[in-house]
Amino acid sequence: MARVVVDVMLKPEILDPQGQAVANALPRLGVTGVSSVRIGKRIEIEFDGEPDLEQAREIADKLLANPVIEDFTIHLPAPAEADK
Amino acid sequence: MARVVVDVMLKPEILDPQGQAVANALPRLGVTGVSSVRIGKRIEIEFDGEPDLEQAREIADKLLANPVIEDFTIHLPAPAEADK
Repeated sequence: MARVVVDVMLKPEILDPQGQAVANALPRLGVTGVSSVRIGKRIEIEFDGEPDLEQAREIADKLLANPVIEDFTIHLPAPAEADK
Repeated sequence: MARVVVDVMLKPEILDPQGQAVANALPRLGVTGVSSVRIGKRIEIEFDGEPDLEQAREIADKLLANPVIEDFTIHLPAPAEADK
């Protein structure tokens, strides 16, 4: 089994009210020094055999991201994530 | 400005109907060989100064993840993501 990760984030010019709500709540938690919070999606696709980045790109493009307002990146899981 | 990334995913034993819906739609796209799809959140926190992983962990624990059903990991953006 091989995993491919697709990260979908709103384009930088698109407002993110959900992230803004989190950023606005931080001072109440006593957290300062945060200038912005953006919230997107992380999708983990498990392939039966070899991970297929091209196929993952097609899935992301057609099903996971709205290309009008979102950008996506595709990558294999970072080695650091393996020991979580 | 320094970015910290928080990945929030449902715990493996928690059903993910949204991911299952995507997985079930794949054969109609002509995509086979995918055994599972899991959909979570990716949160990008921008700090004014140095990235503070401990503070990010506190934010994730209190605001971003529901520890009953979700796990989170905190990391700096991968170098590969910088050139997107």
